[in-house]
Amino acid sequence: MCAALSFAVASEQNDTHDVAARIVGAALVDSRAHDKLAWLTDRIGNRLAGSEALTRAIAWSAEQFERDGLERVWTDEVMVPHWVRGRERARVVAPVEHRLPILALGGSVGTPEGGITAEVVVVDGFESLEVLGEAARGRIVLFNRKMERGFTSENGYGSLSKFRSAGPSAAAKQGAVAMLIRSLGTADYRLPHTGALRYEDGVEKIPSAAVTAEDAMLIARLAEAGETVRIELELGSKTLPDARSANVLAELRGRERPDEVVVIGAHLDSWDVGTGAHDDGAGCAIVMETMRLLKKHDLIPRRTIRAVLFTNEENGLRGGRDYAERYADEMPRHVAAIESDLGGGAPIGFGVTAGEGGVEIVREIAKHLSVIGADQVFPRGGGADISRMKEYGVPQIAQLPDPALYFDYHHTEADTLDKIDRHDLDRNVAAMALMAYMLAEWDEPLPRIEVVDDD
Amino acid sequence: MCAALSFAVASEQNDTHDVAARIVGAALVDSRAHDKLAWLTDRIGNRLAGSEALTRAIAWSAEQFERDGLERVWTDEVMVPHWVRGRERARVVAPVEHRLPILALGGSVGTPEGGITAEVVVVDGFESLEVLGEAARGRIVLFNRKMERGFTSENGYGSLSKFRSAGPSAAAKQGAVAMLIRSLGTADYRLPHTGALRYEDGVEKIPSAAVTAEDAMLIARLAEAGETVRIELELGSKTLPDARSANVLAELRGRERPDEVVVIGAHLDSWDVGTGAHDDGAGCAIVMETMRLLKKHDLIPRRTIRAVLFTNEENGLRGGRDYAERYADEMPRHVAAIESDLGGGAPIGFGVTAGEGGVEIVREIAKHLSVIGADQVFPRGGGADISRMKEYGVPQIAQLPDPALYFDYHHTEADTLDKIDRHDLDRNVAAMALMAYMLAEWDEPLPRIEVVDDD
Repeated sequence: MCAALSFAVASEQNDTHDVAARIVGAALVDSRAHDKLAWLTDRIGNRLAGSEALTRAIAWSAEQFERDGLERVWTDEVMVPHWVRGRERARVVAPVEHRLPILALGGSVGTPEGGITAEVVVVDGFESLEVLGEAARGRIVLFNRKMERGFTSENGYGSLSKFRSAGPSAAAKQGAVAMLIRSLGTADYRLPHTGALRYEDGVEKIPSAAVTAEDAMLIARLAEAGETVRIELELGSKTLPDARSANVLAELRGRERPDEVVVIGAHLDSWDVGTGAHDDGAGCAIVMETMRLLKKHDLIPRRTIRAVLFTNEENGLRGGRDYAERYADEMPRHVAAIESDLGGGAPIGFGVTAGEGGVEIVREIAKHLSVIGADQVFPRGGGADISRMKEYGVPQIAQLPDPALYFDYHHTEADTLDKIDRHDLDRNVAAMALMAYMLAEWDEPLPRIEVVDDD
Repeated sequence: MCAALSFAVASEQNDTHDVAARIVGAALVDSRAHDKLAWLTDRIGNRLAGSEALTRAIAWSAEQFERDGLERVWTDEVMVPHWVRGRERARVVAPVEHRLPILALGGSVGTPEGGITAEVVVVDGFESLEVLGEAARGRIVLFNRKMERGFTSENGYGSLSKFRSAGPSAAAKQGAVAMLIRSLGTADYRLPHTGALRYEDGVEKIPSAAVTAEDAMLIARLAEAGETVRIELELGSKTLPDARSANVLAELRGRERPDEVVVIGAHLDSWDVGTGAHDDGAGCAIVMETMRLLKKHDLIPRRTIRAVLFTNEENGLRGGRDYAERYADEMPRHVAAIESDLGGGAPIGFGVTAGEGGVEIVREIAKHLSVIGADQVFPRGGGADISRMKEYGVPQIAQLPDPALYFDYHHTEADTLDKIDRHDLDRNVAAMALMAYMLAEWDEPLPRIEVVDDD
């Protein structure tokens, strides 16, 4: 290697190190992410699609982007489902009485006036439901599967969430009058965890709710002892006409290739319990603060960084769908989409779905984050809101906080501000800001996902 | 030492070891404690004084003692307070809306029809309440003190429970219209913890409830930011006329000195939330199973062992009072009272309040329990139900499970069977059975507490 080239490499490395130091330093010293999260959770509260709170969150976040000096701030109107919970209660009425704390699943129909009282049958999955045959008719089906910590577990959230989404229609097909699911969660504090269901077309819609792990076990113990367990269930939930909502967007225009875009996203909506701090207030604060800090510290990369706060991730994904459709023409010039939607734990790294060599580039960039422990890179990743861009080949990246406690709080009344450490949140800002900047600065765009044409 | 004496000592030691081995072996191999606890919690459920469930628990436990072959089984009727919770709800209504999961404190009066809506003032103790002066008038007072783990902490349960018991009257004296307390608990899953209050005579009774730690922090954050925080509170609680209840008793008559008694006790009542598994179903199962195993394995000591399942520990202590008064004549021949009322964690040892030399004797006995980790002896201990025997000089012993998680679940909906490990429970039975047997067998009675005559 000649001296001049060696100097150039060293200089370039120094430049990169210098920029990385500025980004990480700004995030750790100058972050207001926690203040933003506190406002969103304490002052606006939970914000389900269709709620007045979500409308306020949209106005507030757009206003924040403006205040933080971003050049282009706008909202894209999106119509969203408007489901309301109403009054709900349940109890075991035989062989003994037990109150059951419950949460209706998002999208569930209500029970008829006066509720439903029926015998419970306990199953551990679709197969054992099918084996029941006629024995499910007129009954309440309880899916009782214990969720385990860890993403790779076959009893993790990814594997078991199908019972929540598809369980209601599966139970209805066998004549069940209602469906209950053992909460998908990992703590043991008698917390019900809500979440969305998906009724199958042409199948009767039956009322569906989550019971706590404790109560699922109780019911299973009684049933195993040969008792006829009867439950009284009353859900006041219903779906109103679609409501007006919006994605909130803001840009840092690229200094050389402004038409090429790195999207950084999170979702502004939450369930209607707790205050949506981990899910996904944290992600919104990370995205918003990434934008403010890059702008403030004049860290403007070659390409454009576009922040998108999606609406309606939880029960419809209308925000994510709208974005991919509305900007379909721009998709060939979207070089990456990064989503933060796993809470506010300490950052551990990234998950990447990209074309060949993409993981290596992300790994190269993430090395700068070893100092804050955020340099792990997994060869698979993305996020619900950005998933619709996949079919256009846009590389998908998950910004990953440590998910160890995430599913303790996910979709519960306990998902509140106090669960999130200020410094962990700042470290996530550092990880997001660095990755977004570097991908927007990188010589070549990240290798795209190969799109297989089904036609 | 002559050979004969040496042999005698060794032989006696062997006898003691032999008995200890039989007791511990029986408890670890042959225990049905978990089955008993499961019945009490799953099939009877929570059992507040005055409830039908407590009446069933009394009948069931007496029947169990009979079935387990104890010679003398009886109940002593006790009149108990009959407080009922009714419907309850609360929410922050300004500056923003937040639902507040709450539990009325046991004994609280209800709110007037339609509830109370008032501004909150946040205090951290009696002093800061007093400093408020007239600023508390017409307001809702919130005691916001964070409870810490550990018995010795000055912010532990022992130190902070005075705010729950005496806080309502302290607030009322300054004209407050209601009192809220940050739940006395150590977990962060948005669980309210109930517990008893004690209205002062001649002071207005104001409605009082526990909010979650999360919500106490939220309210404090809003108030610190200068916001006027208003809360709407509705409690349907009320106190009905006293109800009939009973202590349940059973004896293993001593083979040499049947008039001398070692009491082993726990309380059969619980709060009206969860199923009272840790508090104090575990204690009841430990006491009941201790009796069955000693009887079954023909381990009959010199003195009588009397099991007492007390009623109404939680909100009146009428069972404990009745016992001490009813058997006042026997108190001089009560050589010890052991209570198990700290849940079903792994046993760690005992706490002892006795006359000089008493701790050493208990320590000597507890050595046999080192194999199960239950040989720690602390120089202070007892239990609420047995505390009334103290004034008669009866040595007080707490059988101690590891309390690390106890206050995560204490007085909440989450105090359920699944929190208790079967083998931990069996080890507690071993600890209780060995201590009770040895104290009933010991040559000399345990040194009594010195009673200071106040007259």
